[in-house]
Amino acid sequence: MDHRSTAPIRIAIVGHGNLGRGVEAAIARNPDMVLAGIYTRRDPAQLRPLQPGTPVHGMDSLLAHRAGIDVLVLCGGSKDDLPQQSPALAAHFSLVDSFDTHARIPGHFELVDAAARAAGTTALISAGWDPGMFSLQRLMGEALLPDGATYTFWGKGLSQGHSDAIRRIPGVACGVQYTIPVDEAVQRVRSGVRPELSARERHRRECFVVLEHGADADGVRQAITGMPHYFDEYDTTVHFISAQELARDHAAMPHGGFVIRSGSSSDGLRHSIEYRLQLDSNPEFTASVLVAYARAVHRLQQSGQTGCRTVFDVAPGLLSPKTAQQLRAELL
Amino acid sequence: MDHRSTAPIRIAIVGHGNLGRGVEAAIARNPDMVLAGIYTRRDPAQLRPLQPGTPVHGMDSLLAHRAGIDVLVLCGGSKDDLPQQSPALAAHFSLVDSFDTHARIPGHFELVDAAARAAGTTALISAGWDPGMFSLQRLMGEALLPDGATYTFWGKGLSQGHSDAIRRIPGVACGVQYTIPVDEAVQRVRSGVRPELSARERHRRECFVVLEHGADADGVRQAITGMPHYFDEYDTTVHFISAQELARDHAAMPHGGFVIRSGSSSDGLRHSIEYRLQLDSNPEFTASVLVAYARAVHRLQQSGQTGCRTVFDVAPGLLSPKTAQQLRAELL
Repeated sequence: MDHRSTAPIRIAIVGHGNLGRGVEAAIARNPDMVLAGIYTRRDPAQLRPLQPGTPVHGMDSLLAHRAGIDVLVLCGGSKDDLPQQSPALAAHFSLVDSFDTHARIPGHFELVDAAARAAGTTALISAGWDPGMFSLQRLMGEALLPDGATYTFWGKGLSQGHSDAIRRIPGVACGVQYTIPVDEAVQRVRSGVRPELSARERHRRECFVVLEHGADADGVRQAITGMPHYFDEYDTTVHFISAQELARDHAAMPHGGFVIRSGSSSDGLRHSIEYRLQLDSNPEFTASVLVAYARAVHRLQQSGQTGCRTVFDVAPGLLSPKTAQQLRAELL
Repeated sequence: MDHRSTAPIRIAIVGHGNLGRGVEAAIARNPDMVLAGIYTRRDPAQLRPLQPGTPVHGMDSLLAHRAGIDVLVLCGGSKDDLPQQSPALAAHFSLVDSFDTHARIPGHFELVDAAARAAGTTALISAGWDPGMFSLQRLMGEALLPDGATYTFWGKGLSQGHSDAIRRIPGVACGVQYTIPVDEAVQRVRSGVRPELSARERHRRECFVVLEHGADADGVRQAITGMPHYFDEYDTTVHFISAQELARDHAAMPHGGFVIRSGSSSDGLRHSIEYRLQLDSNPEFTASVLVAYARAVHRLQQSGQTGCRTVFDVAPGLLSPKTAQQLRAELL
């Protein structure tokens, strides 16, 4: 029951975008961990780590460094990087990823699980806040109040996927999209009435767009608001702004949201469980979650538990640097 | 990884106060469970179960029924019942309790753990919402945002312990006490400034008291507001009301509260995690938590994991009747 181990956990970062930089920051705040190195497909000499002394290597040297790494934190994207990287690297390393394409999670799990079992490594996929912390709340809400309904609201926050979709439209130089919960829907859910809500009733979308020189504003607006799946099912507002305004007002990556379970334990008695995140930086908080789960993965590996896991399979105590005894005395 | 088992989990309730009745209601809402029986120290013939067909027995027949019970849910009090019952019954049964005297949890754990290990049973202590769900949030908050501060606020809700303390004062016929978070403190915490808050700054207390005939109202008020630990460190309001008003307006047992973790992932970037419960009935929600953890205890027992656990040691997936595969596909 004592999870404490004296040697620091040696973490390596694979990929150095916003998420990778967040993992660097998170490791610096966890004294039981050390950053063994950053691995990149770019030229290592061009990369600027937070701490000047951090070793930076090309991806091709990762395997040779295996003996010096306890857990990899994969910081690539769910579309092109993780589907290949996670199964391939689980054949050599224990690892954590933030794979967030919900519909493809079962398939991704199977591939990573097979690789990790065969190699005797331990992997945890889809950590972060959604999937991740919000998933845990959806599970707990259902388990504690089986007669009930769960609602997930995202925002107010900057959606990377929707921002990318805007930027692909001809005539758009740059732009960002904020997802915003509809207040009235939130209030109805909090009141416990368990409403049925359409996509439009739950969230609205607000876009800040910089046009290319000479682009047709009305055409761009219509291309955005009519875009299937991304925007057509929502009330969308489009603001055209200058590149200077975009850089000044929309460079941060705040996000958040909440999960509400509204349920009944017997006739007439209602309960509500609400979990809310308010994040100044989506990638930095996601990174903080990845790093806590890297600790759990290391412990599972040390105790001989191999194969793939998700946040559903990890006892919360494994996330904390404290011993089980400390946790009972201080936090229970 | 597949937790599903076809036979329903046979739960027995020990003790039939508000919490025991809540467990009856909760079992009725979980189709993978059956209520094997209610065990009481009172006269079984005097007890009215929710479902007329539920078997009610005296405590002395519990051991003889061991073969028909998978998990006991202990519904006694933390002061006099559970310190004896949990270790004694863990020698024969897998069980869940809601032991909530925070300072005595480590000692209680050791006793139950020794009994359960020796007997090969599985026990989980201190389930409920605090200790329980709030403890999980305190742990997760610290693990995800190590540079931060955690605040627990209780209420608005009826506190059993403080209500009992009022009722022991000479001249008091009956009374209830509500614990209420101080709005200003909550707002400061939510803003991310991590304030240092005294007990008085965090909560206030409101009492509704029925006097005995001829009692001295001012004396009772002073006895309440000056009571060490319970009231003297708080701003306390005392209202004198009639027995009819008490019965009409204060018979319900609502409660709730929230845990807020406010932290930073790097300089200047702040995040807040807030978990909030709003409960029409404190005992019914506590019972719902106990029942979900009874499911987990049964699975741990089935997989050969014996000894004592707390909410920190249980993988969330074990609380759900769904399989790990279903959970990944539906909730992650």
